[in-house]
Amino acid sequence: MNSTCDSLYTADWLITQNEGRDIIHEAALAVAGDRILCVGHAEVLKILYPEARRVDLGEAVILPGLINAHTHVPMSLLRGYSDDKALQDWLQKDIFPQEAQLTPELVELGARLSMAEMIRYGTTAFYDMYMLEDAVFRAADAMGLRAVLGESTTQFFPSLAAKDFSGYERRVRRYAEEWKNHPRIRQAIVPHAPYTTSPDMLHTCRELADETGSLFGMHLAETEWETEECLRVYGKRPVEYCAQLGLLQPDSTFFHLVDLSEDDIHTLAESRCAGVHNPASNMKLASGVAPLQTLLRAGIPMGLGTDGAASNNAQNMLREIYLASLLQKVHSLDPSACPAQTALDLATRGGAAALHDPYIGSLEPGMKADFIALDLTLPHMQPLHNLISQVVFASNGSEVCLNVVDGIELFRDGQFLNFDYNALRNELRQAQAWIRKS
Amino acid sequence: MNSTCDSLYTADWLITQNEGRDIIHEAALAVAGDRILCVGHAEVLKILYPEARRVDLGEAVILPGLINAHTHVPMSLLRGYSDDKALQDWLQKDIFPQEAQLTPELVELGARLSMAEMIRYGTTAFYDMYMLEDAVFRAADAMGLRAVLGESTTQFFPSLAAKDFSGYERRVRRYAEEWKNHPRIRQAIVPHAPYTTSPDMLHTCRELADETGSLFGMHLAETEWETEECLRVYGKRPVEYCAQLGLLQPDSTFFHLVDLSEDDIHTLAESRCAGVHNPASNMKLASGVAPLQTLLRAGIPMGLGTDGAASNNAQNMLREIYLASLLQKVHSLDPSACPAQTALDLATRGGAAALHDPYIGSLEPGMKADFIALDLTLPHMQPLHNLISQVVFASNGSEVCLNVVDGIELFRDGQFLNFDYNALRNELRQAQAWIRKS
Repeated sequence: MNSTCDSLYTADWLITQNEGRDIIHEAALAVAGDRILCVGHAEVLKILYPEARRVDLGEAVILPGLINAHTHVPMSLLRGYSDDKALQDWLQKDIFPQEAQLTPELVELGARLSMAEMIRYGTTAFYDMYMLEDAVFRAADAMGLRAVLGESTTQFFPSLAAKDFSGYERRVRRYAEEWKNHPRIRQAIVPHAPYTTSPDMLHTCRELADETGSLFGMHLAETEWETEECLRVYGKRPVEYCAQLGLLQPDSTFFHLVDLSEDDIHTLAESRCAGVHNPASNMKLASGVAPLQTLLRAGIPMGLGTDGAASNNAQNMLREIYLASLLQKVHSLDPSACPAQTALDLATRGGAAALHDPYIGSLEPGMKADFIALDLTLPHMQPLHNLISQVVFASNGSEVCLNVVDGIELFRDGQFLNFDYNALRNELRQAQAWIRKS
Repeated sequence: MNSTCDSLYTADWLITQNEGRDIIHEAALAVAGDRILCVGHAEVLKILYPEARRVDLGEAVILPGLINAHTHVPMSLLRGYSDDKALQDWLQKDIFPQEAQLTPELVELGARLSMAEMIRYGTTAFYDMYMLEDAVFRAADAMGLRAVLGESTTQFFPSLAAKDFSGYERRVRRYAEEWKNHPRIRQAIVPHAPYTTSPDMLHTCRELADETGSLFGMHLAETEWETEECLRVYGKRPVEYCAQLGLLQPDSTFFHLVDLSEDDIHTLAESRCAGVHNPASNMKLASGVAPLQTLLRAGIPMGLGTDGAASNNAQNMLREIYLASLLQKVHSLDPSACPAQTALDLATRGGAAALHDPYIGSLEPGMKADFIALDLTLPHMQPLHNLISQVVFASNGSEVCLNVVDGIELFRDGQFLNFDYNALRNELRQAQAWIRKS
């Protein structure tokens, strides 16, 4: 690692999210290339690195970049297209038919829009699954975010991306070749869900992940309906079904995890796979409430995700953190459930586990320089009694005044720094006419 | 009413929230003094009022100002002071002792901070209850918001505001005299809750409201604990207890309304009183889930409120609207519960009913000129399929680009127009040292 400090960021506060959850007052963060060189007291680091470029953020808090561990970024195009409906109706009647009309150009446009939103509101890394995902690879490469990206598939062919399953296999092998060794992007093999795939397909997908050095992810146990379907068709609950197919591996990540039995949770914990909680989507689609506290107590690494904009309808991780805490409290009727620190952990350290990336999720020497800052001068961030409380319960995302990934500033003081947002809006204006027509 | 149009606001969209819930494309709103002269198509209104001052908001939506129908504005001083605790612990061990140290200066400062936050995030009117409320009257007068304000009391004297109940009576009679005929401010008599007051006191409070021409409000049925206490002490459930004391009148408003029986809801509906839903507070304090849909079906006019910043921890009505919808959906496991339009109604027409003000809550000729605008160009507000969905599910408050009360602009394009926010922050910095010390 480069030991020359390129940039020294100072701010009133810094939340490390390290093992001891240290918070530093009058703090500084030293960046060397794409890595964090060190964090500490501003006065000390200023002496250590007198030559470094200085960025003083003032009355602000620096924290690890937020990790959106489950989303479908192109779905921003369908934001507000269908609301107030149940998952299966929403998916089968409104979303799937609309998605069947998509083109690579539209997928890329939607992906760029979601990434703009995530950059604006403090996300630095995300785990995505969608169709025609090569467009998302291109968008993530261009927009500068860190990402785990997966071409999703069901058993229903021809799909937008392939005329049969071998076509899908060829496609993901091609992605593996094209994107290997990318500094920010990694592939995942992501079949859609147990109820839209066959056992053979799932087994092959898991093998494909191993063979191509990809991660593995899937929607799992999202609703009671899914459990009933799985029991009816395979005679097993979804987790047991997946376990027997060998899908539960330490590099697997399962999204939603709502309708779980105690045995399911035990099985997941034993396998050392990761999970992702999606409170907004689960609430809006009335899927139910994930047993988040039980999952955490069982030792399952849990990330947090927005899900796609069609079921959220934002890509704002600070809103998601707030919801994660409040939903557990009211559901368990225990106000100490999912306290502020736990909620923040989900979106940082937990997200790192869900993306299987040991170099993100906390601000420590040697970690990737993925960090954000929140402006503490805004009315809703005043006065300051408790920094973690302020981030989790008071923020709304608009406080984000800096977003840095791999040491590169993507957003600062209201401005996107590596793309032209007005040009993106113009493209959207044209695409919107297309969407309305279809 | 003045028929000269002073200002003509134009925008791509306008949500009227009138009886028919009309939405106008390429819209204009004409203001005459403190009233709305008319709303309609921009091209028509530009011809009707060629002399008016023009404000073109462009790619934005104008909508009625949001109404925060239950809060405690001075409590912004205690934002993040105590979290992740149950209502009674939180209140008795953390909040009450801290509040006992308050001064009128601190109450006014906290009130001004909450009002700054509300102005920034789209609230134009609120219903407040706290101690030393004269400081809140002064702050609301100065800050330009519309408000129903009440000096709250318990039976525990001496309090900050009075050495005994007669002192309280004198105080509210004085407020009635001092603030009568104010164009934006009205008094309410607001005893704290059934569990902190005596039956005699409540009865006298209701009489005081009638005698002084004030409204009447109280926390009611907030938790199961309150119901149990009320049954233990008075042998009745809280709603029945209040009904028998004559508190349920058409100008009464009850806050929270969580733990209700079918009979309770019937009793509330019969009395024609109003209610206020507080989803964030109910979730964070794990008070439970209000039977919002049953209350609405019973015909009870329901507003929406943030509650104080110590239990929310923001004063952001757009977040509250979102929560209102999502909480009902997940709790009832019905994704069609509390759809977007219903959630928006709570914060506009419902809020007007909870404040007993027939001149706010919709944008129609003759109504007060209380309106806001949201910037639709931000990434999370793109693309636009459904305007109500965008406002309810996608917004986070930072889209608010205009806040007008009584025809006066309080906020526009990131700037507070009628007070110095930096001066307020300086005062807070000094007060914060005081709060930490105590």
